[in-house]
Amino acid sequence: MQTIVVFGAGLSTSVLIDYLLENAEAEDWKIRVGDMNVEVAKEKIKGHPRAEAFAFNVNDGIQRLHEISNADLVISMLPAHMHVDVARECIGLGKHMVTASYVSNEMQELDEKAREAGVVIMNEVGVDPGIDHMSAKQVLDEIKDQGGKIVQFESFTGGLPAPQSDDNPWNYKFAWNPRNVVLAGASGAVKFKQEGRYKYIPYDQVFRRTEVIEIPGYDRFEGYANRDSLKYREVYGLSDIPTIYRGTLRRPGFCRAWNVFVKLGATDDSYVMEDSENMTYRQFLNSFLAYNPNDSVELKLMHYLNIDRDSEIIDKLRWLGMFSDTKVGIPDATPAQILQHILEQKWSMTDDDLDMVVMYHLFGYELNGEKKSRESYMVIIGEDRVKTAMAKTVGLPVAITAKMILNGKIKEPGVRIPITKDVYEPVLEELGNYDIEFKEREVEYRGY
Amino acid sequence: MQTIVVFGAGLSTSVLIDYLLENAEAEDWKIRVGDMNVEVAKEKIKGHPRAEAFAFNVNDGIQRLHEISNADLVISMLPAHMHVDVARECIGLGKHMVTASYVSNEMQELDEKAREAGVVIMNEVGVDPGIDHMSAKQVLDEIKDQGGKIVQFESFTGGLPAPQSDDNPWNYKFAWNPRNVVLAGASGAVKFKQEGRYKYIPYDQVFRRTEVIEIPGYDRFEGYANRDSLKYREVYGLSDIPTIYRGTLRRPGFCRAWNVFVKLGATDDSYVMEDSENMTYRQFLNSFLAYNPNDSVELKLMHYLNIDRDSEIIDKLRWLGMFSDTKVGIPDATPAQILQHILEQKWSMTDDDLDMVVMYHLFGYELNGEKKSRESYMVIIGEDRVKTAMAKTVGLPVAITAKMILNGKIKEPGVRIPITKDVYEPVLEELGNYDIEFKEREVEYRGY
Repeated sequence: MQTIVVFGAGLSTSVLIDYLLENAEAEDWKIRVGDMNVEVAKEKIKGHPRAEAFAFNVNDGIQRLHEISNADLVISMLPAHMHVDVARECIGLGKHMVTASYVSNEMQELDEKAREAGVVIMNEVGVDPGIDHMSAKQVLDEIKDQGGKIVQFESFTGGLPAPQSDDNPWNYKFAWNPRNVVLAGASGAVKFKQEGRYKYIPYDQVFRRTEVIEIPGYDRFEGYANRDSLKYREVYGLSDIPTIYRGTLRRPGFCRAWNVFVKLGATDDSYVMEDSENMTYRQFLNSFLAYNPNDSVELKLMHYLNIDRDSEIIDKLRWLGMFSDTKVGIPDATPAQILQHILEQKWSMTDDDLDMVVMYHLFGYELNGEKKSRESYMVIIGEDRVKTAMAKTVGLPVAITAKMILNGKIKEPGVRIPITKDVYEPVLEELGNYDIEFKEREVEYRGY
Repeated sequence: MQTIVVFGAGLSTSVLIDYLLENAEAEDWKIRVGDMNVEVAKEKIKGHPRAEAFAFNVNDGIQRLHEISNADLVISMLPAHMHVDVARECIGLGKHMVTASYVSNEMQELDEKAREAGVVIMNEVGVDPGIDHMSAKQVLDEIKDQGGKIVQFESFTGGLPAPQSDDNPWNYKFAWNPRNVVLAGASGAVKFKQEGRYKYIPYDQVFRRTEVIEIPGYDRFEGYANRDSLKYREVYGLSDIPTIYRGTLRRPGFCRAWNVFVKLGATDDSYVMEDSENMTYRQFLNSFLAYNPNDSVELKLMHYLNIDRDSEIIDKLRWLGMFSDTKVGIPDATPAQILQHILEQKWSMTDDDLDMVVMYHLFGYELNGEKKSRESYMVIIGEDRVKTAMAKTVGLPVAITAKMILNGKIKEPGVRIPITKDVYEPVLEELGNYDIEFKEREVEYRGY
């Protein structure tokens, strides 16, 4: 019997744990699920005879070591910065590990030790990062195997409300972590490459420079650029590619309106606003506008940012209640925290809402002297508020990868991400059983 | 005989050291001047019999301790981050210290120890910070002593070319550290208070929200807001003041054009551009603009930032050679480093150029039920490229303060800045002997 220990049993782990439970008998697994709140862990294991819930204190190093030493594989769903300690201990004790988080520099430095210990430390195996790597790399390798030369790679992912729950002027609700949505793009200049030219966009222009993407059956989306597309060149074996661009999907019109918050400075998370608790939404806006007691906040805003009076942007802001006298009510808050609070009143999913994960890749390549393009895309709709699209697309690849490591199908040790055939092929194949599948079509080559 | 040791003998120390040499005989001083480059130090002391030059290695802790232990007062003109170590040693050895730099949090924490040791650690006693503190606080205290209540305080300083050297379309040359000019405003949101309302401006809007200031005999300037005006409320004893605003002066039109660089992201110092060495100025601009090989960089720029074809902004950029095919020639450079390099080709002062330091304060106050305003301003023109306005206005207050500490006129110990009468009164009085003087005039109260 093999033991899998899961650290962290938050919202996004329900589908992950269900998969482990469903396979426990056939694979002869024991499943231990630990969470700070033991009730949350208990709820997830549903009294399954092969599963145990336990109260897990992330700051208790002895408990952590004890759990790892009794496991064959550790799935860490803890906050990203905690993975390195877990990984170090897994390597030391000869245990495999799976996470859905980005490989930090510190994690990468453990690669040699992991190889020496014969341990697989698989990271970035959720949806984004995760399914994006696997699905893109599968097509890239296929084109290369046919003798094609990749000249363009664009990739976009978005977490959005499903069409049946898409009922507000922003065509958006918080499907993923609200804080990350508010701070998106704020951590540094965006870098990418178009037709061989390096391009850089500062934060305040990112949401103005979008691309339109159409996905058959799901209408149009707009994509804004993610922070650093360039680093994926090495990872994907595309060192000399002339065009590489990674982005995030929203519905058209979102970015223009969101840019108002960016331009105002309302997404700044670096300082605390004076007396934020007693501030109204209207005063929040006004604090970014010039002092003039005789002009309305509405007019000052429109003039400052050159917005037409009949623009949909104003409708969107009005719908959020931005001009209202509602109190913020949070002491010592940064602009970003206040904005997140305001948005959560309106953008939170209700119990009836379904979410949607959309992923889209565009591959441009040269084959036999001809330029060609291929699109590949996936749309996953959540089943309910537990089996969300998010929980499925993050949890299933993590769980499947764990299984493949334990049954020896994935065995190459090291600090890894799922970009090689030995990983993406079996994982994508099994994801297909859960309707997580990509459609492909050849399209006319347009270049960038 | 008392010994003064000066750490660092860079460009801005010539007037400072001259003052020490001139007063050495009368005050019975020995002057030791240390610099990494001993020749630079030798040049500054001009063979004066009471002065000695020495090669100073900032990283040699033993030499530093030795020098401090043999001195009565240390003047540190080292880079700001090095002052704390010097201060700690000065306190430990019972020696006074003077710097022109801002008090860091670490420095502030030494206050109690300095008091206990009876040591004066005087900081922020150059021009900005320095003369600004002293001249503002003198008027603020005067108004308060008359029974007035301060309701508005605005303060602006600028280092600019003197009128006779003001001969380019930007009306600007590097009078101060170029790197600081390029990065001005980039370190976080600007905060201030207008008529009781807190106001915040993100970096990309700072240069759009300027104020016009007229100084008699010197025509008009524009002022953009400095980072955090609010923290000066406590320092100046203005906790409840409705309007406080600190800024930097340029000539009108500068900020609108500078904002182009900000909006493009050309002042970003957080990442290295690909192949910066072989990039041309034109490609540098183009890397911030959308890919389209059929449009000119000029038109893409004008369209992107909504600049009219006949705008003076384009003339300014053209004069800098921004659209030219000149090679950047610096490997692994950030956008800010590249921009600084380009500007240095055009904005560097020649041997014939004179610089100018301009300072302006506006005080609004209520006295006997009446609202009043007073302006106070100073314009200093450099004598040549050694006795620059900058070297005079930084060096003289530092040197005078050192004298006043040694002769016991300033004696209150602690980590201090020059905002109390015991400091600003004698220092400003002696600065008057060097024509560093403020003019004052009552003006109509306009509010903000």
